Amino acid sequence: MKIAIVGLGRMGGNIARRLMDAGHDCVVYDQDEAARAAVAADGGQAVDTLDALVAALEPPRHVWLMLPAGDVTQDTIDTLSAMLSAGDAIIDGGNANFKDDVRRAEQLAEQDIDYLDIGVSGGVWGRERGYCLMIGGPTAVVERLDPIFYTLAPQIGDIDRTPGRDGLDPRAEQGYIHCGPAGSGHFVKMVHNGIEYGLMAAYAEGFNLLKGRASQDLPDNERFDLNLADIAEVWRRGSVISSWLLDLSSIALARDAELSDFTGEVADSGEGRWTVDAAVEQAVPVNVLASALFSRFRSRVDDDYGDKLLSAMRREFGGHVESHDD
Amino acid sequence: MKIAIVGLGRMGGNIARRLMDAGHDCVVYDQDEAARAAVAADGGQAVDTLDALVAALEPPRHVWLMLPAGDVTQDTIDTLSAMLSAGDAIIDGGNANFKDDVRRAEQLAEQDIDYLDIGVSGGVWGRERGYCLMIGGPTAVVERLDPIFYTLAPQIGDIDRTPGRDGLDPRAEQGYIHCGPAGSGHFVKMVHNGIEYGLMAAYAEGFNLLKGRASQDLPDNERFDLNLADIAEVWRRGSVISSWLLDLSSIALARDAELSDFTGEVADSGEGRWTVDAAVEQAVPVNVLASALFSRFRSRVDDDYGDKLLSAMRREFGGHVESHDD
Amino acid sequence: MKIAIVGLGRMGGNIARRLMDAGHDCVVYDQDEAARAAVAADGGQAVDTLDALVAALEPPRHVWLMLPAGDVTQDTIDTLSAMLSAGDAIIDGGNANFKDDVRRAEQLAEQDIDYLDIGVSGGVWGRERGYCLMIGGPTAVVERLDPIFYTLAPQIGDIDRTPGRDGLDPRAEQGYIHCGPAGSGHFVKMVHNGIEYGLMAAYAEGFNLLKGRASQDLPDNERFDLNLADIAEVWRRGSVISSWLLDLSSIALARDAELSDFTGEVADSGEGRWTVDAAVEQAVPVNVLASALFSRFRSRVDDDYGDKLLSAMRREFGGHVESHDD
Amino acid sequence: MKIAIVGLGRMGGNIARRLMDAGHDCVVYDQDEAARAAVAADGGQAVDTLDALVAALEPPRHVWLMLPAGDVTQDTIDTLSAMLSAGDAIIDGGNANFKDDVRRAEQLAEQDIDYLDIGVSGGVWGRERGYCLMIGGPTAVVERLDPIFYTLAPQIGDIDRTPGRDGLDPRAEQGYIHCGPAGSGHFVKMVHNGIEYGLMAAYAEGFNLLKGRASQDLPDNERFDLNLADIAEVWRRGSVISSWLLDLSSIALARDAELSDFTGEVADSGEGRWTVDAAVEQAVPVNVLASALFSRFRSRVDDDYGDKLLSAMRREFGGHVESHDD
Repeated sequence: MKIAIVGLGRMGGNIARRLMDAGHDCVVYDQDEAARAAVAADGGQAVDTLDALVAALEPPRHVWLMLPAGDVTQDTIDTLSAMLSAGDAIIDGGNANFKDDVRRAEQLAEQDIDYLDIGVSGGVWGRERGYCLMIGGPTAVVERLDPIFYTLAPQIGDIDRTPGRDGLDPRAEQGYIHCGPAGSGHFVKMVHNGIEYGLMAAYAEGFNLLKGRASQDLPDNERFDLNLADIAEVWRRGSVISSWLLDLSSIALARDAELSDFTGEVADSGEGRWTVDAAVEQAVPVNVLASALFSRFRSRVDDDYGDKLLSAMRREFGGHVESHDD
Repeated sequence: MKIAIVGLGRMGGNIARRLMDAGHDCVVYDQDEAARAAVAADGGQAVDTLDALVAALEPPRHVWLMLPAGDVTQDTIDTLSAMLSAGDAIIDGGNANFKDDVRRAEQLAEQDIDYLDIGVSGGVWGRERGYCLMIGGPTAVVERLDPIFYTLAPQIGDIDRTPGRDGLDPRAEQGYIHCGPAGSGHFVKMVHNGIEYGLMAAYAEGFNLLKGRASQDLPDNERFDLNLADIAEVWRRGSVISSWLLDLSSIALARDAELSDFTGEVADSGEGRWTVDAAVEQAVPVNVLASALFSRFRSRVDDDYGDKLLSAMRREFGGHVESHDD
Repeated sequence: MKIAIVGLGRMGGNIARRLMDAGHDCVVYDQDEAARAAVAADGGQAVDTLDALVAALEPPRHVWLMLPAGDVTQDTIDTLSAMLSAGDAIIDGGNANFKDDVRRAEQLAEQDIDYLDIGVSGGVWGRERGYCLMIGGPTAVVERLDPIFYTLAPQIGDIDRTPGRDGLDPRAEQGYIHCGPAGSGHFVKMVHNGIEYGLMAAYAEGFNLLKGRASQDLPDNERFDLNLADIAEVWRRGSVISSWLLDLSSIALARDAELSDFTGEVADSGEGRWTVDAAVEQAVPVNVLASALFSRFRSRVDDDYGDKLLSAMRREFGGHVESHDD
Repeated sequence: MKIAIVGLGRMGGNIARRLMDAGHDCVVYDQDEAARAAVAADGGQAVDTLDALVAALEPPRHVWLMLPAGDVTQDTIDTLSAMLSAGDAIIDGGNANFKDDVRRAEQLAEQDIDYLDIGVSGGVWGRERGYCLMIGGPTAVVERLDPIFYTLAPQIGDIDRTPGRDGLDPRAEQGYIHCGPAGSGHFVKMVHNGIEYGLMAAYAEGFNLLKGRASQDLPDNERFDLNLADIAEVWRRGSVISSWLLDLSSIALARDAELSDFTGEVADSGEGRWTVDAAVEQAVPVNVLASALFSRFRSRVDDDYGDKLLSAMRREFGGHVESHDD
């Protein structure tokens, strides 16, 4: 099947390669010439402009955008929508807010252009492991693109089948699902990332506790100097908390259990924030997911103003001595 | 009434002075000679040893301990209990874990010595404002010491009476209560301090948000450079969130709205921790009180190991680039 | 001074009355005739339509909206803006999202109509205590309306002056401030309400702990059956956690310490949610404020789906017995 | 190797069976005759009393306790310690607080009896998958019992090796580790369970958000009726949040996506609570782990007293109408 890919960064480039490895044809574009050349070297039909990209496809055309978050996706959709025709489809595989998808789908529908929003998980391991795909948009287009999704997804592989899934939608165990109408793909991906933040924070807090058990402040016989690399590794094997994130933690800790490469400042991206916003909108309590997000915010602050106010209050009621509490 | 005070720090010394101002007799002891001399200068009968202190009282003797948290209170109780007689009473006005009170009361009861645990709030303002007293222990002793408690408490003063309290225990509106048996006084004081942590954190987070609204990252027309000293002051006047802690915040912010005297590292004391422990024991959710405590812990950490682990995981799945999220 | 008030519910009606008590003239409108009549009976110049309201004022006209959250405020602004002239001003004293204020101010500025957003705190007690006012908008109009704001505010009264405020903006200690440009008034009010949620939750958690200490699950000598009405009252007197919210709690608990009038389902309004949204936008951690909001969400849920999933997982790994943990 | 197992519930019985399957000899005891008979039928040497159990072993004897939390473990240790001799060892594989282990090890050391505390994870799947073992105690005994631990552990199996572990302790990738001195095994297991609570809560909150997206309160085009069973399944395949707990969730959701078997009341066990206590002791912030625990507490409460107090405060300041917020 033939498909165009716009945006050939780490994710977009590897998506093209995984498709081409399976015999699909990819017309590829990136504003960076080197990125285009790299995918062309692996068999992609590289083009210099979006015009050329559209010209290289036959109707119904399918253009998959894999662009960084920000204005560039909207700009590209605006540009492309002027070039495409009724029956064509734009697929956004990047990280967008699902409310933007809903709006975009409605705008493109006025021109009979279909819009799919796809949440893609898998990171840099995806080319090899396959990508987990959460798809929102019209059923007809989702079905037409099934060969693409099947190829990108991890497929059953050597992951055990879940008992009781006979008779249920077989796509889920291949690693891709049609979530519902426009926006639902990115909504599910957003919640996925919200959960990811929570899982990561749970491990982080736990390892922090293990690390802190060596503190000189504790009684001698209750102080333990634990081997965190070995603990991460053993938990991968038969424990209730085994996971891919733990696999990755074990790799990192085997390399350097002090994690001395890292400053302790942790970035966050849109999905974690949008998850909290959605929870607030839906009136659903998300203490864990929000705490995980706030913890990243906190990691990037040096002298917290709120903390200073706490000290100021304590000085006022406790008498000019920060170390005295009421 | 005659009473002995052991421990003449800021709290103990002022308690003695407030009692003496009202005509009570105080026999006072502190291991520090200068502390004894200071209270003696204000009318206290200072003694050099606990033996002398006990000798200066007539049965039933009342000895009020106002010592820092730690072993010294237990040691002093052990020493005193060997000197006192059946019918005497030891009063602990310091900050003790209520479970220690329960144990101490049972041990002293074997010698027919009564034990009172009193939670005392008021900080350095107490000599003037009076102290809020939460008393645990046997009713007979609590009643015998009523003149002492009445004197120490703020009494009604110019604080409005609460509608509907006619017929209820009149001591509460004088500023002291008998909470129940041994341990209950310090339990109530512990929860008081737990709430205090929560209230302080609520203000701290709110002022942090106000402060952060001047951030250059925000759109020009949604960025506000707010006057935090004026905001604290205006909220004291007619708003729903007026409180004594806000009064203190307003004082501190009027002095220096940048709070540049403070490092942002905030200490915590036993009560905040015991509150969370009690909540865990009672299976009562305390998300706010625990968050307030954890926030103080976090304020004292520079490079959090857990945060580094988050970055390490992100590098593993995102491809060696901390700034890329899945 | 003459001013129009649109919306004569509890807040709007009392605002008109407090102004009229001080000699100001109020032209008043509400779509409900009875509401109009009630304020007319207290001296208001009631009108039947917005047209009549505008006609009853002389330029520069000032129209204060005090409407429930929702579309009605925007609709009324749209209607009024077609009737008003350059130099007139619309004041929104209701609860709006500050981003709506920014947008509205920009739209009205195109017609040279000024827009003020005022956060008003004080609830049903405001007519008597005065209202705490947080004002956003252009300086010239704020200064022109100073007599109105001064009248509505609580003024110094018998609340102690904050030491160190000489030389600072005197309006703050009268109970009103000019926060900054459009949106800043409601932003400050929003954070005020966010803090309010946090404070309320801190008390709620604390009283919950006190209540739970009577549980039969605890050891006999560590179980306390506490008098919560007396505790609330005593904390009002000399303790660090005295506040207006505690005053209100003491009133409620004196009336019925079992709080049997209440179901335990707690509503929330926009400001608490917007506070969390703003914190997410600003990347400021608000663990306490968010927990307080989530706790209200949780109070309205009976059988939480997430909780069921926890049980389901436990059954899978623990072996069909919910009561067994790994 | 010969070992005694005391306590033949689900965990103890299967541990015996897994050992016997590999050729070890198990002397087994349970106070319940049927439990003994069941393991005897699978090859165990069942005995009627602890005396008989000790008599059936040769020095150095090894007795593995697998008893429910509570007094029975301490009682059994007390009884056994009177029967055993210097050089023998007691192994506690149940769920104990690590501080109890420290104390027990010191008491048994006075008789030269060794004590091992082993955290065992794996639940009902352990007989087949193997048990993840976290061992605390003296090195010599840990090494002597290596064949037992190797057999019980999952061993490498088909779980990928972690890159970079060559040269590190090979036991970790077999699924067992020697954590350190007495108490450290149960400490690591305790943190494991704390993390487990956090992970479970992250999934629960995420699925709750997905479920809630079908709410009629949301705009039509932003409302999604999602298939949670398919979502759980697809996330197992290539996503960042794949884990064993997600595998189990997928099984449960494939069976009944409404989870109608469950009430929503979730139990908790000691480890989750001890984790929070340890964090408080170590001054380590654990917002996520504590929230996960509190959420379980909350799931078991119907009419929360704290929530009622919130409503009571709202009535006082908002004027007798619960639905009005200030």
